[in-house]
Amino acid sequence: MADRPLELGYMSLGDHLADPVTGERQSQRRRFATLVEAAARAEMVGFSSVWLGEHHFSEWIVSSPQVALAAIAERTTTVRLGTSVTLLVNLDPVRVAEDFATLDLVSDGRAELAIGRGILSQTYAAFGQDLDRSRPDFEEKLDLLLRLWREGSVDWAGTVRPPLEGVEVQPRPLQRPHPPVWVGGGTSEASVDLAARLGLPLMLPSVFAKPERFAPMAERYRERYTAAGHDPAGMRVGGCNHCHVARTTQEARQRWRPYYRAYYDLGQRALAQSAGLWSGRTIAPFDFDGATRGAGICGSPAEVTDRILAVRDLLGLDVHLLMFDLGGLPERDLFATLDLFGAEVVPAVRGAVPATPAPA
Amino acid sequence: MADRPLELGYMSLGDHLADPVTGERQSQRRRFATLVEAAARAEMVGFSSVWLGEHHFSEWIVSSPQVALAAIAERTTTVRLGTSVTLLVNLDPVRVAEDFATLDLVSDGRAELAIGRGILSQTYAAFGQDLDRSRPDFEEKLDLLLRLWREGSVDWAGTVRPPLEGVEVQPRPLQRPHPPVWVGGGTSEASVDLAARLGLPLMLPSVFAKPERFAPMAERYRERYTAAGHDPAGMRVGGCNHCHVARTTQEARQRWRPYYRAYYDLGQRALAQSAGLWSGRTIAPFDFDGATRGAGICGSPAEVTDRILAVRDLLGLDVHLLMFDLGGLPERDLFATLDLFGAEVVPAVRGAVPATPAPA
Repeated sequence: MADRPLELGYMSLGDHLADPVTGERQSQRRRFATLVEAAARAEMVGFSSVWLGEHHFSEWIVSSPQVALAAIAERTTTVRLGTSVTLLVNLDPVRVAEDFATLDLVSDGRAELAIGRGILSQTYAAFGQDLDRSRPDFEEKLDLLLRLWREGSVDWAGTVRPPLEGVEVQPRPLQRPHPPVWVGGGTSEASVDLAARLGLPLMLPSVFAKPERFAPMAERYRERYTAAGHDPAGMRVGGCNHCHVARTTQEARQRWRPYYRAYYDLGQRALAQSAGLWSGRTIAPFDFDGATRGAGICGSPAEVTDRILAVRDLLGLDVHLLMFDLGGLPERDLFATLDLFGAEVVPAVRGAVPATPAPA
Repeated sequence: MADRPLELGYMSLGDHLADPVTGERQSQRRRFATLVEAAARAEMVGFSSVWLGEHHFSEWIVSSPQVALAAIAERTTTVRLGTSVTLLVNLDPVRVAEDFATLDLVSDGRAELAIGRGILSQTYAAFGQDLDRSRPDFEEKLDLLLRLWREGSVDWAGTVRPPLEGVEVQPRPLQRPHPPVWVGGGTSEASVDLAARLGLPLMLPSVFAKPERFAPMAERYRERYTAAGHDPAGMRVGGCNHCHVARTTQEARQRWRPYYRAYYDLGQRALAQSAGLWSGRTIAPFDFDGATRGAGICGSPAEVTDRILAVRDLLGLDVHLLMFDLGGLPERDLFATLDLFGAEVVPAVRGAVPATPAPA
């Protein structure tokens, strides 16, 4: 973590759920319109970046974040446009290189992507990957993606796709050698070690557990990154949390609880349908008090600011992604919480220098 | 062909060539900016639709038209957003269904796609398709794409991708049952027959030869479509030509000639590198006079209007796509020809009723 201000990112996974309070479920058309509008609003209120996550055949209905981000690119001018995550293990690195180079060009060099292995085993089945080979396939695909962008004409042969002979992917990304590629991972040491070994930034999936869980991972990443001798400027750690802010603690908690619960239930349904990637893991019954001391950040502007800075210091974050639009939260509530966040939390976070020295 | 006015489409394949007059080659970033700007301008001057074509590893640098079209969606409000063509034979129909449903949602229901088998054999090699199976693979993928959109949960097994068990693609397209899917083809009877058999619209690749070549194909399509008993409203024929308009015939021809030549040379290079799909075919030496009586439409507004209406009557076109931005034509010339086209050709074409009865 450099002594630069924490960057705040607006993140959405595009869950398409009914409002648990009213029972109303907006159309998918409206859901995407909200995604684009909220991204434009996030830029307006001071976020540095927008991040969309990819899922397939799911109640999280963003399966092509690159297409949605291209629309957002035309509605915004400064925010970085990222994915959290792109399921590289289930995709063809050639298509990923093409899609994100195109996004980079139409956005004037604002594309980023975090790549990961996902949480839904049915995605592996449908795209023909073997769950047991998830990690080696991921590493092989990452290596190919980086080669396609870093080299010109590529000769390649491996196990994850047909061989390539003298292939130069077009178009070329605007950012050279390529848009930032974050390794999305940190529930296991292997992903952390991969990011450190390759000198790539690390995006911790800290929505999955309380932040403390990831502190050893962030520390391990920095140690190994430094030991590998990579350029210190490239050593970056990101994290993500769910968030809701209102004028008072009580109002925030009362308002958010049913939506966070509905979102939690979605996670349980997803895990129940999945297998393999999450074998041996269980999700505890919903506990709002516990959740809002963990992956959920909820409260007044002052409370939310305090928790964001605490997570920043705990994990040494350079970028903190926050998810607001979850569980069927109506658009008016989403925009109200975003506006308040922009008015009071963004300036407070931006003005804060790291409270403690960066972890070693 | 119904007795409705001909729809005009603005088409680009995104070739990235140096200006043959000045030797200057714009950056890829600028090339994409021009694509988006020109699409917005096309809407403004009266085109009904915008169409981008997909190529890979080529001097035609649009490899992800769906990403570029999503950006265009946010810059426009009425134009339909199509591809001409999407190389379905080289792609995964699941990803195509996801990408274009997303485009359909972010564009408020304006997505269309023409699908085809392409002209570059190296695309088959890189994506692992067998050239000899191009036609059956294409038909199998088309069948799957339509099932993914028309049905909910799909069980499927075949040869072109891993099997699917109970997969419901998300998001769902806004247009129901799905965005228009044009069969891009017409150099062979098989593609025409496929479109007629499935009751799909037909997009003739009439940039490849003089319009007369495709008249029997259009007639065959209408006969077979009608004989198959499909809804007559779905019987639509599209075509495409290169175009340049200026105040006078002489100015148009003098100005366009070097650019059309440069574009012709690109076609020759592409065919020289390719094989299989085009085996046995050759391209004759560049002949500007011949070309502008064939696939190229060039001249004063009155001449261009006459030729567009002649092609419409010859082929019974419902939609006519026109390619202006080719061969390194500078943006100022592109916009000048578009503005003139909008001011004089669009109203003339719009006011014209079919000069002859629709072909049987």
